[in-house]
Amino acid sequence: MSDQYKYNLSENDLPTSWYNINPDMPVDPAKTAWNAVLNPQTKEPVTPEFLSVLFPMKFIQEAVSMERWIEIPEEVQEIYKLWRPTPLIRARRLEKALDTPAHIYYKYEGASPVGSHKANTAVPQAFYAKQEGCVGFTTETGAGQWGTALAMATNMFGLECHVYMVKVSYHQKPYRRIIMESFGSSVVASPSDQTSYGRKMQELYPDTPGSLGMAISEAVEAAATSNGKYKYSLGSVLGPVLMHQSVIGQEALKQMEMAGEYPDVVIGCVGGGSNFAGIAFPFIRENLTNGKKTRIVAVEPTACPTLTKGTYAFDYGDTAQMAPIVKMHTLGHDFVPQGIHAGGLRYHGMAPHVSALVDSGHVEAIALDQLDTFEGAMMFARAEGLFPAPESSHAVRAAINEAIKAKEEGKARVIVFNLSGHGFFDLTAYDDYRKGKLEKFEYPEEKIAESMKNLPQVAF
Amino acid sequence: MSDQYKYNLSENDLPTSWYNINPDMPVDPAKTAWNAVLNPQTKEPVTPEFLSVLFPMKFIQEAVSMERWIEIPEEVQEIYKLWRPTPLIRARRLEKALDTPAHIYYKYEGASPVGSHKANTAVPQAFYAKQEGCVGFTTETGAGQWGTALAMATNMFGLECHVYMVKVSYHQKPYRRIIMESFGSSVVASPSDQTSYGRKMQELYPDTPGSLGMAISEAVEAAATSNGKYKYSLGSVLGPVLMHQSVIGQEALKQMEMAGEYPDVVIGCVGGGSNFAGIAFPFIRENLTNGKKTRIVAVEPTACPTLTKGTYAFDYGDTAQMAPIVKMHTLGHDFVPQGIHAGGLRYHGMAPHVSALVDSGHVEAIALDQLDTFEGAMMFARAEGLFPAPESSHAVRAAINEAIKAKEEGKARVIVFNLSGHGFFDLTAYDDYRKGKLEKFEYPEEKIAESMKNLPQVAF
Repeated sequence: MSDQYKYNLSENDLPTSWYNINPDMPVDPAKTAWNAVLNPQTKEPVTPEFLSVLFPMKFIQEAVSMERWIEIPEEVQEIYKLWRPTPLIRARRLEKALDTPAHIYYKYEGASPVGSHKANTAVPQAFYAKQEGCVGFTTETGAGQWGTALAMATNMFGLECHVYMVKVSYHQKPYRRIIMESFGSSVVASPSDQTSYGRKMQELYPDTPGSLGMAISEAVEAAATSNGKYKYSLGSVLGPVLMHQSVIGQEALKQMEMAGEYPDVVIGCVGGGSNFAGIAFPFIRENLTNGKKTRIVAVEPTACPTLTKGTYAFDYGDTAQMAPIVKMHTLGHDFVPQGIHAGGLRYHGMAPHVSALVDSGHVEAIALDQLDTFEGAMMFARAEGLFPAPESSHAVRAAINEAIKAKEEGKARVIVFNLSGHGFFDLTAYDDYRKGKLEKFEYPEEKIAESMKNLPQVAF
Repeated sequence: MSDQYKYNLSENDLPTSWYNINPDMPVDPAKTAWNAVLNPQTKEPVTPEFLSVLFPMKFIQEAVSMERWIEIPEEVQEIYKLWRPTPLIRARRLEKALDTPAHIYYKYEGASPVGSHKANTAVPQAFYAKQEGCVGFTTETGAGQWGTALAMATNMFGLECHVYMVKVSYHQKPYRRIIMESFGSSVVASPSDQTSYGRKMQELYPDTPGSLGMAISEAVEAAATSNGKYKYSLGSVLGPVLMHQSVIGQEALKQMEMAGEYPDVVIGCVGGGSNFAGIAFPFIRENLTNGKKTRIVAVEPTACPTLTKGTYAFDYGDTAQMAPIVKMHTLGHDFVPQGIHAGGLRYHGMAPHVSALVDSGHVEAIALDQLDTFEGAMMFARAEGLFPAPESSHAVRAAINEAIKAKEEGKARVIVFNLSGHGFFDLTAYDDYRKGKLEKFEYPEEKIAESMKNLPQVAF
């Protein structure tokens, strides 16, 4: 075991393939349908032709591929090298502050130019769109983490990018909008007057602050009606997105080897599931094929408790019922979560792969309240100097809880978590927390019961 | 020559000593008085006793030390390891965008938790104060880069930190204030009602937006009247601060060796001089003692052209004439620069060491307008993905200009510049630039002529 703080890999250690968990999924596809995608109109399995209206063909091929390792195109590797490999850092000052025998490591994805892991999938998606001759992408973004990543990637490949940004964020959080515009993207507040769905929403709810569900619907419509000019890009949930993020866990495996330790527990926060899958899937593979017994923990907010309180069922990916239907843990497609600061975790559904792995017991799921997560983030910041994004703070807090438990039990424990992004654009939330202005959100039991009534009936 | 993008050193390569340029200064101290510090009242050389009211004794000893290498205390090294060594990155995408034969490398100090090089001196200063039994520090900050660094460092050593923040920034730029407060520092808008100088300013100029000069005077007064409870901390200008930053250039030397190249030109932006000295002094040493002929370029804003239009003379360090008098390039202590976004470069004076080296011809100085620097920063961001701080953008632009010149001359050239901090908290300035709202500032010739009349008369 080394006494280092930081484990830096060299560029030569950058993974050259993504890890595709499809062939290793420890559940029967026929039984759990973790990879079934249904047409929202017909409720029958979609054809590649249907999907190709929305996604680049290469992306669709990745979704159904049963190859375990998929080579990362050289052009993508070259851009990854701007910030990858990212550091794995031993949080020794936090360990000391907690007086714990546990060893706490965090993988720091905030080191990317746009400040989060989202760049890992934005780059290959933009590359495929460019290769296939598209003009650009449409997409949605909440607080802007995903939008900034796609804006950077499209700019690097000379593509257009049209972002539908949830209205309340558009006005309250100008920083990420400025980054997107500086990269040459167009950004409009959603609901906008640029789509028929947006206009309908404006008419029905003139004062709506917008929602991620509405913004997805606008972006999907804009791509679907563009005669192939634009494709639609999604920053989470789908298989290829999770796979692109696997560089995180692959690097972390090598870095833990450098540290001379192996994790007892691996932790990630979950919204759509992509940063979690990125850190976790390579370790799950070790569990499945290499006899390891690492606990894999997904952490969600109590305000949007998809995995801990949702149902594992077929549901629409978006509010407007325009996106495909998939089998996942869901709170119902018209569930609107309370206004927690971790905007990236406010999604009614969950990646089908992650859902299936929770259902099969390979992944544990827990939920934390935002007062707890900000308290944890503040402890982390004061010890390590760094302010985590509100989303990542869920993983931070869960890691702290594990370290405290280790102390209580008087046991050593090796904890690895993914710090998926920095919180520099979310500092007003820290201010609100310090001033006692943040709300505690309990499980929204009644609201969930209500929205669960509207799940689609599918024969599949 | 390697084909890498990023040159990461391991923790074991972290410098264990700071480089003190004092014994290597290629100018006669008697002639240029680069290290003379005069009492603002008596205008005679200060005694250590006088300085010890303001600064920790260890800091004063460093200021006068003629030891070339000063060991970095272990406690400081341990904290440096949270973010150091920082990466040196070859800006290959920028080179391609410029279609230049030049090789452009940047040392990225924005990788520190507080986003700039300032943490490199905040940590040792806080360590010394702790060792000497102080309760804490007072300091000033403009936009907050320095304040956040000292807030992090004092928090890590359990010290208090009281920050006088220029009023206009306090209200307009809440993000860095929130970081300081989250680290447990107190932050007040300056001029404040907490010092007699502040109260006087409030009375004389009730609507003043404040200035760095006023804030320095408040912080100095608060420390000087605290009966030794608080020391005053300065984030630039003074010899020990420049020395603490020498880790930057020492690392860059090793990293250029990894890259298999040696710089033809080394570039840094200058306000007080500390990030510039950090990257430059170790390379100047190579010029002086190792037969190297690297051009060393300091870049300042035309709106505050201390080196290119100021006089090399004795002047007060602050507006209120409470801080010591030093020999430096100055625009006059009551010169108030126009409101450029690079707030950290709005200082009427310059580090005496840097001034002496410009005077002796060992350092070139140039000035750039902020429209040019933002244009350069935008080119950089669109190529490399990263938004530089407005201060660092001066170095970015100068590097781009060198690369363009290399292309015109059809010559290879190896350029290294210091990217001293990220611009995530300055994005509204980018927005203003994009929207054509930024002013171009010519040399303020008349204003300089006016303020130069008020230099102190010293016999020294």
